[in-house]
Amino acid sequence: MAGKVFFSVTMSLDGYMAPDDDEVSVERVFSPEGREDPAVQRWMQKWSELQAWAFPLRWFRENLKLGEGGEEGLDNDIARATYDRTGASVMGKRMFDGGELAWPEEAPFHTPVFVVTHERRDPWERPGGTTFHFVNDGIESALSQARQAAGDRDVRIAGGAETIQQYLDAGLVDEFTVTVSPVLFGSGTRLFDRIDADRLALQQVRAEASSRVTHLTYSVAKR
Amino acid sequence: MAGKVFFSVTMSLDGYMAPDDDEVSVERVFSPEGREDPAVQRWMQKWSELQAWAFPLRWFRENLKLGEGGEEGLDNDIARATYDRTGASVMGKRMFDGGELAWPEEAPFHTPVFVVTHERRDPWERPGGTTFHFVNDGIESALSQARQAAGDRDVRIAGGAETIQQYLDAGLVDEFTVTVSPVLFGSGTRLFDRIDADRLALQQVRAEASSRVTHLTYSVAKR
Repeated sequence: MAGKVFFSVTMSLDGYMAPDDDEVSVERVFSPEGREDPAVQRWMQKWSELQAWAFPLRWFRENLKLGEGGEEGLDNDIARATYDRTGASVMGKRMFDGGELAWPEEAPFHTPVFVVTHERRDPWERPGGTTFHFVNDGIESALSQARQAAGDRDVRIAGGAETIQQYLDAGLVDEFTVTVSPVLFGSGTRLFDRIDADRLALQQVRAEASSRVTHLTYSVAKR
Repeated sequence: MAGKVFFSVTMSLDGYMAPDDDEVSVERVFSPEGREDPAVQRWMQKWSELQAWAFPLRWFRENLKLGEGGEEGLDNDIARATYDRTGASVMGKRMFDGGELAWPEEAPFHTPVFVVTHERRDPWERPGGTTFHFVNDGIESALSQARQAAGDRDVRIAGGAETIQQYLDAGLVDEFTVTVSPVLFGSGTRLFDRIDADRLALQQVRAEASSRVTHLTYSVAKR
Protein backbone atom coordinates (compact mmCIF):
# COMPACT_ATOMS: atom_id res chain seq x y z
CA MET A 1 0.00 0.00 0.00
CA ALA A 2 1.65 3.19 -1.21
CA GLY A 3 1.72 6.31 0.91
CA LYS A 4 0.96 9.86 -0.10
CA VAL A 5 3.11 12.32 -1.99
CA PHE A 6 3.33 15.58 -0.08
CA PHE A 7 5.37 18.69 0.50
CA SER A 8 5.70 20.79 3.62
CA VAL A 9 7.29 24.23 3.49
CA THR A 10 7.33 27.55 5.29
CA MET A 11 5.82 30.46 3.36
CA SER A 12 5.72 34.18 4.06
CA LEU A 13 2.20 35.59 4.31
CA ASP A 14 2.74 37.17 0.89
CA GLY A 15 3.61 33.85 -0.70
CA TYR A 16 7.40 33.55 -0.73
CA MET A 17 9.48 30.51 0.13
CA ALA A 18 12.85 32.28 0.06
CA PRO A 19 14.25 35.81 -0.28
CA ASP A 20 15.60 37.16 -3.57
CA ASP A 21 18.73 35.29 -4.53
CA ASP A 22 19.86 37.30 -7.54
CA GLU A 23 23.03 38.42 -5.79
CA VAL A 24 23.32 35.48 -3.43
CA SER A 25 24.38 31.99 -4.48
CA VAL A 26 24.25 29.06 -2.12
CA GLU A 27 28.02 28.69 -2.37
CA ARG A 28 28.45 32.31 -1.36
CA VAL A 29 26.16 31.99 1.68
CA PHE A 30 28.30 29.20 3.06
CA SER A 31 31.70 30.68 2.21
CA PRO A 32 33.77 32.68 4.73
CA GLU A 33 33.77 35.76 2.42
CA GLY A 34 30.02 35.40 1.94
CA ARG A 35 29.37 35.93 5.61
CA GLU A 36 30.86 39.43 5.35
CA ASP A 37 28.79 40.32 2.28
CA PRO A 38 25.88 42.70 3.05
CA ALA A 39 23.72 41.04 0.36
CA VAL A 40 24.26 37.65 2.00
CA GLN A 41 23.56 39.13 5.42
CA ARG A 42 20.27 40.61 4.20
CA TRP A 43 19.34 37.28 2.63
CA MET A 44 20.17 35.40 5.82
CA GLN A 45 18.22 37.82 7.96
CA LYS A 46 15.06 37.49 5.89
CA TRP A 47 15.43 33.74 5.69
CA SER A 48 15.98 33.55 9.44
CA GLU A 49 12.79 35.54 10.08
CA LEU A 50 10.83 33.24 7.80
CA GLN A 51 12.17 30.15 9.56
CA ALA A 52 12.18 31.66 13.06
CA TRP A 53 9.45 29.28 14.24
CA ALA A 54 11.62 26.22 13.52
CA PHE A 55 15.01 27.08 15.03
CA PRO A 56 14.03 26.83 18.72
CA LEU A 57 12.32 23.45 18.32
CA ARG A 58 13.74 20.45 20.12
CA TRP A 59 13.21 18.24 17.07
CA PHE A 60 14.89 20.69 14.68
CA ARG A 61 17.89 21.10 16.97
CA GLU A 62 18.19 17.38 17.51
CA ASN A 63 17.91 16.42 13.83
CA LEU A 64 20.32 19.11 12.64
CA LYS A 65 22.78 18.41 15.46
CA LEU A 66 22.47 21.94 16.83
CA GLY A 67 22.51 20.87 20.45
CA GLU A 68 20.43 19.52 23.29
CA GLY A 69 17.13 20.91 24.49
CA GLY A 70 14.65 23.10 22.71
CA GLU A 71 10.96 23.88 22.69
CA GLU A 72 8.23 21.27 22.69
CA GLY A 73 4.58 21.75 21.80
CA LEU A 74 2.51 21.90 18.62
CA ASP A 75 5.20 23.19 16.26
CA ASN A 76 7.65 20.58 17.48
CA ASP A 77 5.07 17.81 17.21
CA ILE A 78 4.26 18.84 13.64
CA ALA A 79 7.92 19.04 12.63
CA ARG A 80 8.57 15.60 14.07
CA ALA A 81 5.42 14.09 12.52
CA THR A 82 6.49 15.41 9.11
CA TYR A 83 9.77 13.60 9.54
CA ASP A 84 8.16 10.42 10.86
CA ARG A 85 5.73 10.03 7.95
CA THR A 86 8.50 10.39 5.36
CA GLY A 87 9.85 7.16 3.91
CA ALA A 88 11.82 8.83 1.11
CA SER A 89 12.41 12.36 -0.17
CA VAL A 90 12.79 13.90 -3.60
CA MET A 91 14.68 17.14 -4.13
CA GLY A 92 16.08 19.34 -6.88
CA LYS A 93 19.75 19.80 -7.59
CA ARG A 94 19.93 23.34 -6.17
CA MET A 95 18.50 22.25 -2.84
CA PHE A 96 20.95 19.37 -2.73
CA ASP A 97 23.88 21.67 -3.54
CA GLY A 98 22.91 23.98 -0.67
CA GLY A 99 22.34 21.09 1.68
CA GLU A 100 25.63 19.45 0.81
CA LEU A 101 27.29 22.58 2.23
CA ALA A 102 24.90 23.06 5.17
CA TRP A 103 23.77 19.70 6.51
CA PRO A 104 25.74 17.95 9.25
CA GLU A 105 27.68 14.84 8.23
CA GLU A 106 24.73 12.83 9.51
CA ALA A 107 22.32 14.33 6.96
CA PRO A 108 18.86 15.03 8.43
CA PHE A 109 16.80 12.59 6.31
CA HIS A 110 17.74 9.09 7.52
CA THR A 111 16.02 7.63 4.45
CA PRO A 112 16.79 7.38 0.73
CA VAL A 113 16.73 10.78 -1.01
CA PHE A 114 16.31 11.08 -4.78
CA VAL A 115 17.97 14.12 -6.34
CA VAL A 116 16.64 15.17 -9.75
CA THR A 117 19.70 16.29 -11.70
CA HIS A 118 21.53 16.09 -15.00
CA GLU A 119 24.72 15.23 -13.15
CA ARG A 120 25.73 11.59 -13.14
CA ARG A 121 27.02 10.51 -9.78
CA ASP A 122 27.15 7.33 -7.72
CA PRO A 123 24.84 7.04 -4.71
CA TRP A 124 26.25 8.94 -1.76
CA GLU A 125 25.75 7.22 1.55
CA ARG A 126 25.90 9.26 4.74
CA PRO A 127 26.14 8.05 8.33
CA GLY A 128 22.73 7.74 9.96
CA GLY A 129 20.83 6.13 7.08
CA THR A 130 20.58 8.86 4.44
CA THR A 131 21.59 7.78 0.94
CA PHE A 132 21.39 10.28 -1.90
CA HIS A 133 20.54 8.78 -5.30
CA PHE A 134 21.07 10.94 -8.37
CA VAL A 135 18.27 10.54 -10.89
CA ASN A 136 18.93 11.65 -14.46
CA ASP A 137 15.67 10.72 -16.17
CA GLY A 138 13.17 13.19 -14.79
CA ILE A 139 10.69 13.85 -12.02
CA GLU A 140 8.38 10.89 -12.66
CA SER A 141 11.26 8.45 -12.47
CA ALA A 142 12.53 10.05 -9.26
CA LEU A 143 9.06 9.82 -7.73
CA SER A 144 8.56 6.24 -8.74
CA GLN A 145 11.92 5.27 -7.21
CA ALA A 146 11.02 7.21 -4.07
CA ARG A 147 7.64 5.49 -3.80
CA GLN A 148 9.35 2.14 -4.07
CA ALA A 149 11.85 3.07 -1.37
CA ALA A 150 9.24 4.57 0.96
CA GLY A 151 7.14 1.42 1.18
CA ASP A 152 3.95 2.28 3.03
CA ARG A 153 5.31 5.59 4.30
CA ASP A 154 4.89 8.88 2.43
CA VAL A 155 7.14 10.53 -0.13
CA ARG A 156 8.13 14.10 0.61
CA ILE A 157 8.92 16.51 -2.18
CA ALA A 158 11.49 18.36 -0.12
CA GLY A 159 12.14 21.31 -2.43
CA GLY A 160 13.16 23.74 -3.68
CA ALA A 161 10.35 25.83 -5.07
CA GLU A 162 10.90 24.87 -8.68
CA THR A 163 10.88 21.15 -7.95
CA ILE A 164 7.71 21.47 -5.87
CA GLN A 165 6.08 23.43 -8.69
CA GLN A 166 6.98 20.77 -11.24
CA TYR A 167 5.39 18.01 -9.16
CA LEU A 168 2.36 20.13 -8.30
CA ASP A 169 1.81 21.15 -11.91
CA ALA A 170 2.11 17.54 -13.04
CA GLY A 171 -0.70 16.58 -10.66
CA LEU A 172 1.64 14.32 -8.69
CA VAL A 173 1.14 15.88 -5.23
CA ASP A 174 -1.64 14.47 -3.04
CA GLU A 175 -1.38 16.83 -0.10
CA PHE A 176 0.71 19.68 1.20
CA THR A 177 1.28 21.76 4.30
CA VAL A 178 2.17 25.43 4.20
CA THR A 179 3.45 26.88 7.45
CA VAL A 180 2.46 30.54 7.19
CA SER A 181 5.06 32.72 8.86
CA PRO A 182 4.10 36.25 10.01
CA VAL A 183 6.49 38.02 7.64
CA LEU A 184 6.14 39.94 4.39
CA PHE A 185 8.97 39.57 1.87
CA GLY A 186 7.82 41.80 -0.97
CA SER A 187 10.09 39.89 -3.35
CA GLY A 188 11.86 36.58 -3.60
CA THR A 189 11.05 33.03 -4.72
CA ARG A 190 7.33 32.42 -4.78
CA LEU A 191 6.00 29.06 -3.67
CA PHE A 192 3.08 28.97 -6.14
CA ASP A 193 4.66 30.05 -9.38
CA ARG A 194 4.89 28.49 -12.83
CA ILE A 195 1.83 26.30 -12.23
CA ASP A 196 -1.42 26.14 -14.14
CA ALA A 197 -3.53 27.15 -11.15
CA ASP A 198 -6.85 26.58 -12.91
CA ARG A 199 -6.15 22.86 -13.17
CA LEU A 200 -5.65 22.32 -9.42
CA ALA A 201 -8.50 22.03 -6.92
CA LEU A 202 -7.59 22.34 -3.26
CA GLN A 203 -9.48 21.33 -0.19
CA GLN A 204 -8.55 22.51 3.28
CA VAL A 205 -7.77 19.42 5.37
CA ARG A 206 -6.77 21.12 8.60
CA ALA A 207 -5.29 24.26 10.12
CA GLU A 208 -3.17 24.19 13.26
CA ALA A 209 -1.93 27.35 14.91
CA SER A 210 0.79 27.87 17.47
CA SER A 211 1.55 31.26 18.95
CA ARG A 212 4.04 31.88 16.11
CA VAL A 213 2.72 30.38 12.88
CA THR A 214 -0.20 28.53 11.33
CA HIS A 215 0.18 25.21 9.55
CA LEU A 216 -2.35 24.94 6.72
CA THR A 217 -2.84 21.53 5.12
CA TYR A 218 -4.63 20.98 1.80
CA SER A 219 -5.41 18.00 -0.38
CA VAL A 220 -4.89 18.45 -4.12
CA ALA A 221 -6.97 17.13 -7.00
CA LYS A 222 -6.65 17.80 -10.72
CA ARG A 223 -9.60 19.30 -12.51
CA MET B 1 -10.88 56.34 23.24
CA ALA B 2 -10.23 55.63 19.57
CA GLY B 3 -10.61 52.17 18.10
CA LYS B 4 -8.26 50.26 15.83
CA VAL B 5 -7.71 50.63 12.12
CA PHE B 6 -8.04 47.26 10.42
CA PHE B 7 -8.80 45.48 7.20
CA SER B 8 -10.36 42.10 6.62
CA VAL B 9 -10.25 40.45 3.22
CA THR B 10 -10.35 37.06 1.57
CA MET B 11 -7.11 35.96 -0.11
CA SER B 12 -6.29 32.99 -2.31
CA LEU B 13 -3.57 30.75 -0.90
CA ASP B 14 -1.22 32.21 -3.50
CA GLY B 15 -1.86 35.76 -2.36
CA TYR B 16 -4.54 37.22 -4.63
CA MET B 17 -7.54 39.31 -3.62
CA ALA B 18 -9.22 39.28 -7.03
CA PRO B 19 -8.79 37.66 -10.46
CA ASP B 20 -7.15 39.43 -13.39
CA ASP B 21 -9.26 42.35 -14.47
CA ASP B 22 -7.41 43.45 -17.59
CA GLU B 23 -10.37 42.56 -19.79
CA VAL B 24 -13.05 42.98 -17.17
CA SER B 25 -14.25 46.31 -15.85
CA VAL B 26 -16.66 46.59 -12.97
CA GLU B 27 -19.21 48.24 -15.25
CA ARG B 28 -18.96 45.32 -17.64
CA VAL B 29 -19.46 42.72 -14.90
CA PHE B 30 -22.73 44.33 -13.91
CA SER B 31 -24.02 45.05 -17.40
CA PRO B 32 -26.43 42.70 -19.23
CA GLU B 33 -23.95 42.26 -22.11
CA GLY B 34 -21.15 41.59 -19.62
CA ARG B 35 -22.91 38.53 -18.28
CA GLU B 36 -22.64 36.88 -21.71
CA ASP B 37 -18.94 37.70 -22.05
CA PRO B 38 -16.66 34.66 -21.50
CA ALA B 39 -13.98 36.87 -19.90
CA VAL B 40 -16.53 38.16 -17.38
CA GLN B 41 -17.79 34.65 -16.76
CA ARG B 42 -14.25 33.41 -16.05
CA TRP B 43 -13.69 36.37 -13.73
CA MET B 44 -16.95 35.73 -11.89
CA GLN B 45 -16.21 32.03 -11.53
CA LYS B 46 -12.80 32.62 -9.96
CA TRP B 47 -14.14 35.35 -7.74
CA SER B 48 -17.03 33.10 -6.66
CA GLU B 49 -14.61 30.33 -5.73
CA LEU B 50 -12.53 32.75 -3.69
CA GLN B 51 -15.61 34.02 -1.85
CA ALA B 52 -17.39 30.66 -1.68
CA TRP B 53 -17.05 30.53 2.10
CA ALA B 54 -19.09 33.73 2.53
CA PHE B 55 -22.11 33.25 0.26
CA PRO B 56 -23.89 30.58 2.35
CA LEU B 57 -23.56 32.52 5.62
CA ARG B 58 -26.68 33.74 7.36
CA TRP B 59 -25.08 37.08 8.14
CA PHE B 60 -23.87 37.65 4.56
CA ARG B 61 -27.30 36.79 3.13
CA GLU B 62 -29.05 38.98 5.65
CA ASN B 63 -26.79 42.00 5.21
CA LEU B 64 -26.79 41.83 1.41
CA LYS B 65 -30.55 41.17 1.29
CA LEU B 66 -30.07 37.84 -0.44
CA GLY B 67 -32.79 36.10 1.52
CA GLU B 68 -33.65 34.38 4.77
CA GLY B 69 -31.69 31.58 6.37
CA GLY B 70 -28.11 30.52 5.86
CA GLU B 71 -25.31 28.83 7.74
CA GLU B 72 -24.29 29.66 11.27
CA GLY B 73 -21.04 28.77 13.00
CA LEU B 74 -17.53 30.15 13.13
CA ASP B 75 -17.41 31.78 9.70
CA ASN B 76 -20.76 33.45 10.31
CA ASP B 77 -19.71 34.64 13.77
CA ILE B 78 -16.50 36.13 12.36
CA ALA B 79 -18.30 37.87 9.49
CA ARG B 80 -20.80 39.36 11.92
CA ALA B 81 -18.13 40.37 14.44
CA THR B 82 -16.21 42.16 11.68
CA TYR B 83 -19.35 44.13 10.92
CA ASP B 84 -20.13 44.81 14.59
CA ARG B 85 -16.70 46.25 15.41
CA THR B 86 -16.81 48.67 12.48
CA GLY B 87 -17.86 52.22 13.30
CA ALA B 88 -16.86 53.65 9.92
CA SER B 89 -15.28 52.39 6.70
CA VAL B 90 -12.82 53.84 4.22
CA MET B 91 -12.71 52.68 0.61
CA GLY B 92 -11.20 53.54 -2.74
CA LYS B 93 -13.11 54.92 -5.67
CA ARG B 94 -12.98 51.69 -7.69
CA MET B 95 -14.52 49.68 -4.87
CA PHE B 96 -17.21 52.29 -4.49
CA ASP B 97 -17.94 52.27 -8.22
CA GLY B 98 -18.37 48.50 -8.16
CA GLY B 99 -20.45 48.61 -5.02
CA GLU B 100 -22.70 51.34 -6.33
CA LEU B 101 -23.72 48.87 -9.03
CA ALA B 102 -23.81 45.80 -6.81
CA TRP B 103 -25.03 46.72 -3.33
CA PRO B 104 -28.71 46.64 -2.46
CA GLU B 105 -30.42 50.01 -1.96
CA GLU B 106 -29.86 49.53 1.76
CA ALA B 107 -26.06 49.49 1.41
CA PRO B 108 -24.41 46.89 3.68
CA PHE B 109 -22.44 49.28 5.94
CA HIS B 110 -25.00 51.05 8.13
CA THR B 111 -22.31 53.55 9.17
CA PRO B 112 -20.51 56.48 7.55
CA VAL B 113 -18.24 55.40 4.67
CA PHE B 114 -15.41 57.62 3.44
CA VAL B 115 -14.55 57.24 -0.24
CA VAL B 116 -11.07 58.42 -1.26
CA THR B 117 -11.54 59.99 -4.66
CA HIS B 118 -10.72 62.95 -6.89
CA GLU B 119 -14.40 63.30 -7.72
CA ARG B 120 -16.30 66.03 -5.89
CA ARG B 121 -19.71 64.86 -4.84
CA ASP B 122 -22.17 65.61 -2.06
CA PRO B 123 -22.63 63.03 0.68
CA TRP B 124 -24.88 60.22 -0.50
CA GLU B 125 -27.26 58.94 2.14
CA ARG B 126 -28.74 55.48 1.77
CA PRO B 127 -31.64 53.94 3.67
CA GLY B 128 -30.44 51.91 6.66
CA GLY B 129 -27.81 54.31 7.96
CA THR B 130 -25.04 54.23 5.37
CA THR B 131 -23.82 57.65 4.24
CA PHE B 132 -21.02 57.87 1.68
CA HIS B 133 -18.73 60.86 2.09
CA PHE B 134 -16.39 61.71 -0.78
CA VAL B 135 -12.96 62.77 0.43
CA ASN B 136 -10.74 64.68 -1.98
CA ASP B 137 -7.69 65.39 0.16
CA GLY B 138 -6.07 62.01 0.57
CA ILE B 139 -5.93 58.90 2.70
CA GLU B 140 -4.90 60.53 5.97
CA SER B 141 -7.80 62.94 5.84
CA ALA B 142 -10.24 60.13 5.04
CA LEU B 143 -8.91 58.10 7.96
CA SER B 144 -9.07 60.99 10.37
CA GLN B 145 -12.70 61.69 9.40
CA ALA B 146 -13.49 57.99 9.72
CA ARG B 147 -11.90 57.83 13.19
CA GLN B 148 -13.99 60.77 14.27
CA ALA B 149 -17.16 59.14 12.95
CA ALA B 150 -16.36 55.73 14.43
CA GLY B 151 -16.08 56.95 18.02
CA ASP B 152 -14.82 54.09 20.11
CA ARG B 153 -15.49 51.51 17.44
CA ASP B 154 -12.93 50.48 14.82
CA VAL B 155 -12.27 51.85 11.36
CA ARG B 156 -12.27 49.32 8.56
CA ILE B 157 -10.22 49.90 5.44
CA ALA B 158 -12.73 48.12 3.24
CA GLY B 159 -10.71 47.95 0.00
CA GLY B 160 -9.82 47.53 -2.73
CA ALA B 161 -6.30 46.19 -2.82
CA GLU B 162 -4.64 49.46 -3.76
CA THR B 163 -6.33 51.41 -0.97
CA ILE B 164 -5.40 48.74 1.58
CA GLN B 165 -1.79 48.83 0.33
CA GLN B 166 -1.64 52.61 0.68
CA TYR B 167 -2.79 52.50 4.29
CA LEU B 168 -0.56 49.54 5.12
CA ASP B 169 2.48 51.12 3.53
CA ALA B 170 1.83 54.37 5.39
CA GLY B 171 1.91 52.47 8.68
CA LEU B 172 -1.72 53.37 9.39
CA VAL B 173 -3.09 49.84 9.85
CA ASP B 174 -3.06 48.37 13.38
CA GLU B 175 -4.37 44.92 12.61
CA PHE B 176 -5.73 42.83 9.79
CA THR B 177 -7.45 39.56 9.07
CA VAL B 178 -6.80 37.51 5.97
CA THR B 179 -9.30 34.77 5.28
CA VAL B 180 -7.26 32.21 3.36
CA SER B 181 -9.43 30.49 0.77
CA PRO B 182 -8.36 27.09 -0.60
CA VAL B 183 -7.89 28.29 -4.17
CA LEU B 184 -4.92 29.12 -6.37
CA PHE B 185 -5.35 32.00 -8.83
CA GLY B 186 -1.96 32.09 -10.56
CA SER B 187 -2.61 35.69 -11.58
CA GLY B 188 -4.77 38.64 -10.57
CA THR B 189 -4.64 41.44 -8.03
CA ARG B 190 -2.23 40.67 -5.22
CA LEU B 191 -3.15 41.69 -1.69
CA PHE B 192 0.44 42.48 -0.61
CA ASP B 193 1.81 44.48 -3.47
CA ARG B 194 3.38 47.92 -3.77
CA ILE B 195 4.38 47.96 -0.10
CA ASP B 196 7.80 48.32 1.46
CA ALA B 197 7.64 44.93 3.17
CA ASP B 198 10.89 45.41 5.10
CA ARG B 199 9.34 48.25 7.09
CA LEU B 200 6.40 46.24 8.43
CA ALA B 201 6.65 43.81 11.35
CA LEU B 202 3.75 41.41 11.81
CA GLN B 203 2.73 39.38 14.77
CA GLN B 204 0.23 36.56 14.58
CA VAL B 205 -2.68 37.42 16.89
CA ARG B 206 -4.92 34.44 16.22
CA ALA B 207 -5.87 31.82 13.65
CA GLU B 208 -9.39 30.46 13.41
CA ALA B 209 -10.27 27.64 11.03
CA SER B 210 -13.64 26.45 9.82
CA SER B 211 -14.02 23.46 7.52
CA ARG B 212 -13.70 25.77 4.50
CA VAL B 213 -11.18 28.53 5.28
CA THR B 214 -8.77 29.86 7.88
CA HIS B 215 -8.98 33.38 9.28
CA LEU B 216 -5.48 34.65 10.11
CA THR B 217 -5.21 37.81 12.19
CA TYR B 218 -2.01 39.85 12.55
CA SER B 219 -1.04 43.02 14.33
CA VAL B 220 1.18 45.43 12.40
CA ALA B 221 4.04 47.59 13.64
CA LYS B 222 6.46 49.76 11.69
CA ARG B 223 10.13 49.01 11.97
